[in-house]
Amino acid sequence: MSAYDELMRFQHDTEALAQVAGRLGWDQETMMPRGAADQRSDEMAAMETVLHARRIDPRVGAWLDAIDPETLDPVGRAQVREIRRSYERTRKIPADLAARIAKVTSKAQGQWAIARANEDVAAFLPVLEEVVQLKQQEGQALADGGDVYDAMLQDYEPGMSAAALDEIFGAMRPRLVALRAAVLDRPAPPALAGHFDAQTQMRLARQLARTFGYDMSRGRLDKAVHPFSSGSGHDVRITTRTSEIDPFNCLYSTIHEVGHACYEQGIDDAYLLSPLGQGVSMGVHESQSRIYENQLGRSRAFTGWLYGQMRDAFGDIGIADEESFYATVNRVHDGYIRTESDEVQYNLHIMLRFDLERAMMAGDLPVSDLEAAWNDRFEADFGYAVDKPSNGCLQDVHWSVGLFGYFPTYALGNVYAGCLHEALRGAVPDLDAQLAEGDTSAATGWLRDNLQRHGGLRLPRETITHASGMEPGPEPLLSYLEAKFGALYALKAA
Amino acid sequence: MSAYDELMRFQHDTEALAQVAGRLGWDQETMMPRGAADQRSDEMAAMETVLHARRIDPRVGAWLDAIDPETLDPVGRAQVREIRRSYERTRKIPADLAARIAKVTSKAQGQWAIARANEDVAAFLPVLEEVVQLKQQEGQALADGGDVYDAMLQDYEPGMSAAALDEIFGAMRPRLVALRAAVLDRPAPPALAGHFDAQTQMRLARQLARTFGYDMSRGRLDKAVHPFSSGSGHDVRITTRTSEIDPFNCLYSTIHEVGHACYEQGIDDAYLLSPLGQGVSMGVHESQSRIYENQLGRSRAFTGWLYGQMRDAFGDIGIADEESFYATVNRVHDGYIRTESDEVQYNLHIMLRFDLERAMMAGDLPVSDLEAAWNDRFEADFGYAVDKPSNGCLQDVHWSVGLFGYFPTYALGNVYAGCLHEALRGAVPDLDAQLAEGDTSAATGWLRDNLQRHGGLRLPRETITHASGMEPGPEPLLSYLEAKFGALYALKAA
Repeated sequence: MSAYDELMRFQHDTEALAQVAGRLGWDQETMMPRGAADQRSDEMAAMETVLHARRIDPRVGAWLDAIDPETLDPVGRAQVREIRRSYERTRKIPADLAARIAKVTSKAQGQWAIARANEDVAAFLPVLEEVVQLKQQEGQALADGGDVYDAMLQDYEPGMSAAALDEIFGAMRPRLVALRAAVLDRPAPPALAGHFDAQTQMRLARQLARTFGYDMSRGRLDKAVHPFSSGSGHDVRITTRTSEIDPFNCLYSTIHEVGHACYEQGIDDAYLLSPLGQGVSMGVHESQSRIYENQLGRSRAFTGWLYGQMRDAFGDIGIADEESFYATVNRVHDGYIRTESDEVQYNLHIMLRFDLERAMMAGDLPVSDLEAAWNDRFEADFGYAVDKPSNGCLQDVHWSVGLFGYFPTYALGNVYAGCLHEALRGAVPDLDAQLAEGDTSAATGWLRDNLQRHGGLRLPRETITHASGMEPGPEPLLSYLEAKFGALYALKAA
Repeated sequence: MSAYDELMRFQHDTEALAQVAGRLGWDQETMMPRGAADQRSDEMAAMETVLHARRIDPRVGAWLDAIDPETLDPVGRAQVREIRRSYERTRKIPADLAARIAKVTSKAQGQWAIARANEDVAAFLPVLEEVVQLKQQEGQALADGGDVYDAMLQDYEPGMSAAALDEIFGAMRPRLVALRAAVLDRPAPPALAGHFDAQTQMRLARQLARTFGYDMSRGRLDKAVHPFSSGSGHDVRITTRTSEIDPFNCLYSTIHEVGHACYEQGIDDAYLLSPLGQGVSMGVHESQSRIYENQLGRSRAFTGWLYGQMRDAFGDIGIADEESFYATVNRVHDGYIRTESDEVQYNLHIMLRFDLERAMMAGDLPVSDLEAAWNDRFEADFGYAVDKPSNGCLQDVHWSVGLFGYFPTYALGNVYAGCLHEALRGAVPDLDAQLAEGDTSAATGWLRDNLQRHGGLRLPRETITHASGMEPGPEPLLSYLEAKFGALYALKAA
């Protein structure tokens, strides 16, 4: 057997074990009895120990050394590229540092939840300081003398740099700030009001999942506190939640997670349980969830169809016609919370976090100054002051978990979705006529053929370029947003 | 760190991983999307490979060699005893034989299901022949020149021998055959008739689970094709099933699985994720499920309470009073199928299988003669002929899975339950008064204190002796059955 074949056989089991660990995570959020939490953390730790040992197994290094990538086809080269990245990444982190990060972030999550509940930033800062210091050490280990934040970005978006993000975000911020101000200067459409039965929401959510091409025979939809998608290949499960006063939360969370899940389900079976058998990056993943949720799910054409479905399911929903429903779905409103934001304002939330976390990692922003920096920046971009920490710098769990470099991939996903949407419109000229009938098959089929089925074959940027035929940049997204919300809010052209 | 501490730390992770593999099995039977089956078998195989490697890890052998059991307390000696048994057992089986058994039994299960559906014994015999030959080789490897069947028994009931089973079963068979004949000579009580809503059955099942002390905060009850209990420690899940014409199937399956689950939940927390942190044998496990289901759950006192619960849940169930309900619950009836049998006849089904599988393992019964041998023995014990293979030698999955030596533990469980029940009656004189109120706490508390909490501390026989104060034997079970069914069927005393 060749070194490549041996490596791939070994890696197959590693991928299978990673799927098992992932399914354990799904179980924890959906099925696990509450009294099992302590035992579960021992079980997860044992799985992580096994996976870590496999990722730095010296045989992997020997096989990698023995393989000449030039003798491989493009798929083989991509497999080796991904295995090498994981191997080298894992070997760079000293075991005791990894253990300390696991321990401190576990503690920090608990302290963050308490601090947020008590609106007590000061109670969170000491453990955040520990997390930041350890993540700086990790970043230095990964960076090998290069930029620490760039090194951390590679965990979520291989090939991306802070400089490239600066350029993208620099082009976006002034236009989004201006669009936001113009929109909020106009009268707002009404929010949805009324009571919406949770079971009916779940029935409609299941229907929407199928409408967007989610294969229920290789997945399932359950309720969880936070919506998520989990697993790769033939077992990709999603969750949503219900609020009886806000059915959009359930329905659009479902469409969002279906976007993630269809990416995983759509990957070529030839890559099953291999490094290429999963979404290539967080940003590309988010491009799928966002294009399903926003460019398709919140389009005028699709919301027209959804309006009929909602009236069939709930009866009168207090909205007179499709046009008003479209406006309500896309309502732009003030608010502090990123996850409750809209297409216009969402990326501003991300840029704020990107700038602050990068400054923290560089040592330019002491955690003691975080709250003030957050509040100043929020007021500058949004025009009003943060009223309490749970609406400000304590709103997201990410930093307590040690996720630095993750936030920007949310905005990158929107940028990528903009590019893909522009290309999709060109490829499927009658898309709106199909969406108006609740038919997403041409759109989701195009995404599957051009992006999803390739999994991790190409690096993130090339994945988008291959699918959209363009170098990824913010212009398509910005044009789309300015056109959509310009029309919705009857703005004068700039 | 001492060799013992290092061994126990290593074993802790092995036990945690075994729990993960078990939870994957639970997921497969309850939650897994049907299209995920192939991927799941790769995931399970990867887990098994990891577990197997840990069980024969040379470090385990070195630690075991370095430990002087005399320096340990009884708990430590028991831990080492269990780890040594697993280590030596696993090392005796050549890797290629284990792989062939896994492959052939996987194939055999599929062929068994098809053969059973087609009533085609001949289609199953070739693969059964393969299974038998491979299991004989495994048994020889385990036996080291000793008795092959005895060696296989150790996998399910450490310390048990075929000779001891012969003695127990030899005492039981004539008395059970006689009791059966006498009972069936009398008029039978009516079976339950009517339609019983499945959701109401599940609500009642949940109530019964709690009534028998099952801790829902460390477990959960779901539906599955075959009822089972899964997991140890703080995450012990059970399943049941519903038939809208037979609510007893759901309710008594639930009580049975609650017995298994309470054993696991009841084990001392000090043994969590250690070899002692699980039921010590299949037979002792079955003693718990059987005493919950039969000696408690099918007692006159408890069925009186259950009658009221069923009427509350379903309204009129077509049975006039508690006494008639008790008779219906304990109705003895002709039938071919082990799993649908009653307390009087169940053990006869087991003895048949024990004699036949032992003869197959010894090479005294060629698989080509299995059907004839089964049918002859069935007619001898039950008095009527097997009408089709799915009612005869094709009814059970066990042999196709390679489970030889497992069947007798079902009957052993009944024998052990008889001993425990006799001791329990002595310890809790007013048990019936409590059961008549639906209060099982004294009974389940006695079982937890005297048996369940000790987990794997003592070998199976000593576990029963410690709890019941007697050497396990069939007399208590036989006396109980003769008294109970003698009264129910107004038999003359022998």
